[in-house]
This record gives sequence, structure tokens and C-alpha cells, in this order.
Amino acid sequence: MTRVRLTVAYDGTRFAGWQLQAPGMGRTVQGCLEEALARLCGEAARVHGAGRTDAGVHAVAQVAHVDVPEARAGLPWQRALNALLPDDVSVVDAAVVPPDFHARFDASGKIYQYTLWTRPGSILPWRRPYVWDVGRFSPLDVAAMDACAALFAGYHDFAAFQNAGSSVKTSTRLVHGVSRLPQANSDEMVWRFHAEGFLKQMVRNLMGALVEVGRGKAAPEDIRSVLTLGQRRHAPRTAPAGGLCLMAVEYGNAGRGHKRHLGQN
Amino acid sequence: MTRVRLTVAYDGTRFAGWQLQAPGMGRTVQGCLEEALARLCGEAARVHGAGRTDAGVHAVAQVAHVDVPEARAGLPWQRALNALLPDDVSVVDAAVVPPDFHARFDASGKIYQYTLWTRPGSILPWRRPYVWDVGRFSPLDVAAMDACAALFAGYHDFAAFQNAGSSVKTSTRLVHGVSRLPQANSDEMVWRFHAEGFLKQMVRNLMGALVEVGRGKAAPEDIRSVLTLGQRRHAPRTAPAGGLCLMAVEYGNAGRGHKRHLGQN
Repeated sequence: MTRVRLTVAYDGTRFAGWQLQAPGMGRTVQGCLEEALARLCGEAARVHGAGRTDAGVHAVAQVAHVDVPEARAGLPWQRALNALLPDDVSVVDAAVVPPDFHARFDASGKIYQYTLWTRPGSILPWRRPYVWDVGRFSPLDVAAMDACAALFAGYHDFAAFQNAGSSVKTSTRLVHGVSRLPQANSDEMVWRFHAEGFLKQMVRNLMGALVEVGRGKAAPEDIRSVLTLGQRRHAPRTAPAGGLCLMAVEYGNAGRGHKRHLGQN
Repeated sequence: MTRVRLTVAYDGTRFAGWQLQAPGMGRTVQGCLEEALARLCGEAARVHGAGRTDAGVHAVAQVAHVDVPEARAGLPWQRALNALLPDDVSVVDAAVVPPDFHARFDASGKIYQYTLWTRPGSILPWRRPYVWDVGRFSPLDVAAMDACAALFAGYHDFAAFQNAGSSVKTSTRLVHGVSRLPQANSDEMVWRFHAEGFLKQMVRNLMGALVEVGRGKAAPEDIRSVLTLGQRRHAPRTAPAGGLCLMAVEYGNAGRGHKRHLGQN
């Protein structure tokens, strides 16, 4: 077998998330990829993603690996897969990698972006599936949001920002930074979340907290207490899935190589 | 009656264009607006747009006017309309204007943008409805395209770039400029078309010519000949609708006031 690394973009709107579901439980990105790969390989193919994204969450560069038969290794994978995949999934890169490369275990970091629609009164129709419309709360207290975001950086137990249904051993994660991007246009506000790894719905929960702070419903100090207490029921609500997009998965220190991590999700 | 000016954004993907069609011939933006207005006015309302956009063409700021009964003049039109309109249309501004304001006859200029997807190999799924994917022709000869675009500026008879089905008196139009915008990202190339007015499918035909030149299938001089000969059958094909977006309608010299033009479309 030959191992191929796939970098995949998708519009999460019409997907029940990345991960394969039981039959009848909705189409998934993994399912679409495995179906196309099975046709090209002439046999079943299992795709391993760097991480699961929820229903409605988008990706610019999700990473996955798959083992294909030696005899097919020379296929132009990107072009061949794109010819078979539905319109809302696109392979943006495909490369043969060493057989010990693992999309999930070798990942050393992930970058997500969350986009808020902040213009009051109206939203541009085509932005609906890709933003959380908080225009009715404008203007948000940006300084308070920035102050709150700074609290998230570093090693913390993010138990309060993890949704039920997860089975991780520890809820401590190293967050490199949560920051507001320079404003591309005055209608939207984009937040960047960079960490070694994230818990289930952690980004959406952190974003929910930031918006509470922006609205003046909570102070950064309140969110600090939630983080310290570690209880989900004290935390603000989860931000909607559509505003979230997986931007990059990092491998190795330089983001190019790969090394095996021990249990890091 | 009180005249209200509406500025409207829409995603053209699922519309048979701006203009009202015969029943059963597809939903239109004008139709959606008139339906919502009729409910708010308690009587039929006729919407006059600054110009028609084709099926699949989008708008960031189409302008229209409508006369509403005095008794309803005080309604918060933007909010009230947005509450009734479907997700792919949004009123971004509404204002009471003098009764002699006319969205179409007073328009002194229009700005369109056309977006090309230029990255070879793959396209980001959510960009499909908003771009023309010319990635397979990359790299385009940008210098030749710029040279060709410069030919379009000024007063010209654009008969060769007008599609059938139009009933205008003259096909001469003043084009202020056709220019490539500074590249926002390396995957897309955005062209801006600014003119006093455009003929039917003129922007899409000019864009088709620019791409022919970018591919090396035609030289700028060939396009100059097409323009001079004035025959549509010599011109390159029409660019797809989805890449086109109406960005602004200008009124008066400062783009704020309004003056009556004589027959300018």
C-alpha cells in the first residue's frame, strides 16, 4: 500500500460533519471521500482525518491520509478525486507521504477562524452560511473581547468549554493564541484560534464567551472564573457552527515534517 | 404616495434574474420585493430597479424605488422587508426620497465586478456560484489582459458586445474604466467595470474577451477589431453569469444626488 495525504476544502453547510455516520444519518465529508476513493482504488478505502469537524463547520484545509493499492499509487489523485467528488468538497492538494505519516497523531497544531457578521440591520445573503450574525448586538465592546481572548492563551484546563460526548483523557490544552484579525471589511469581524489541539466544540464555546463579553453580558473576569471553575453550565452558549472554518493543520515544528504525538488530539 | 428608495443585495444563484417573469417562469428579485411590499402596503406595489440583472448575477447594492401609501410611509422599511424576504435577498438600506427620484432614469453610472477563479487544480467549494473557474487556463497573460481592458475605456459603439434581445436606441456607451483590482488573494482575480451604462450582457461579453486574451487565444488588437467591426459573431463567448456582481449604482455627479438623464439606460 502507498500512503497519500489529502488536503481537503469543504462547505460544511449540507454535511452532517466530517465523520462517517451510520447509514441514513446524513452525508459526511469522510463518506464522500471514501466513496470516491473506493471507485478509484477498486476496493474499500479508509480515510483518517486530522480531526472531526461538526455539522455545518467548513474547512479550507482539512488534512487526511489514506492507503491506496501500489498499483494505483501513480494516479493523479487530486484531479481524479475532484472529478468524482460532489461540488461542496474539493481536494486542494494530494501527495504521497511516508507510510508512518498519520494525519491525526502527527498533527502538532490547528488553526481555526470564526467569522462574526457585525453590521446591524442586514446581512449579505451569501454570507449567511459562513458567519454568526451578531449585527443586532453592535457595536460590540472590542477592547473587552480582546482582553478576554488574551485569557485563553497558554496551558489551561478547558473543561468548561468542552461539550458533552467527548472521551478525551485530559481537558488541558495549550492554546497558542486567540486573536482578532485586522478588519478586512467593516461588516465582519474574524477571530483566529491557534492551539496544539482543541476539545469538542471548544472553539465555538470560546467564541460564545467572547460575544457575551462583547455584548457586555459578561466581563473578562467572569470568563476567567468560568475557566477556573471548569464547569460547562457556567459558560456562555455555544456559537453556531456556520461561522467556523478549519484553516490549517500543522505538522512538526516547522509545520512541514511530522512527528508522533502521544495521545494529543 | 411616498417614494422609498431601496438598496438591495441578493444572491442571484436561485433567481431567474431581477426582472419579474410571467407566472411559472421562475422566481425573481423584483417579484420577491413586490410580494413583501404588497403585504406591508396592503395593496399591490410596483418596484422599479436601476437595471436588470440576468439569472445567476448577484448584487451588493442594486437600487430600486417604490411608491408606498402615505399611511404606511413611517414603517421601518428595511427591518420590515427583511423580516418578510427570503434568505437570498436583503435590503441593506431604505430611505424616503423626493417623489421625482427614479432609480433607473436618474442613475448616472454603474459599477460591476467580475471574479475569476484562477488557481489551477481545484476550487474552494463555496466560491463556485460567485466565480468563473478559469484555473485550467492558468497562468493567464495578465499584461495582455490589462492592455485589452484599456481599449474599452471611453466612448465606443459596443454593438459587438451586446447580446440579442435588446431594444436600445444606441449601442454607444461611455465606459469610465475596466481595471483589474489589486489581488486580494492569489486564487482569484477581480475585474471592475465602471460605465455610465451597460448594454445587455455587455460586462459578461467584455469579460469573455479578456479571458480569451489572457489565454493567448486572441491578441488585444483582435479585440480592438471586434469592437470596430461591431459584429457580435466575431466576439468571444459570454462569460458565465455567476462571476458577475452589481456593486453600485451612482446618482448625480457626486453619486449622492440625482438628475434626470435622457434615455440613458
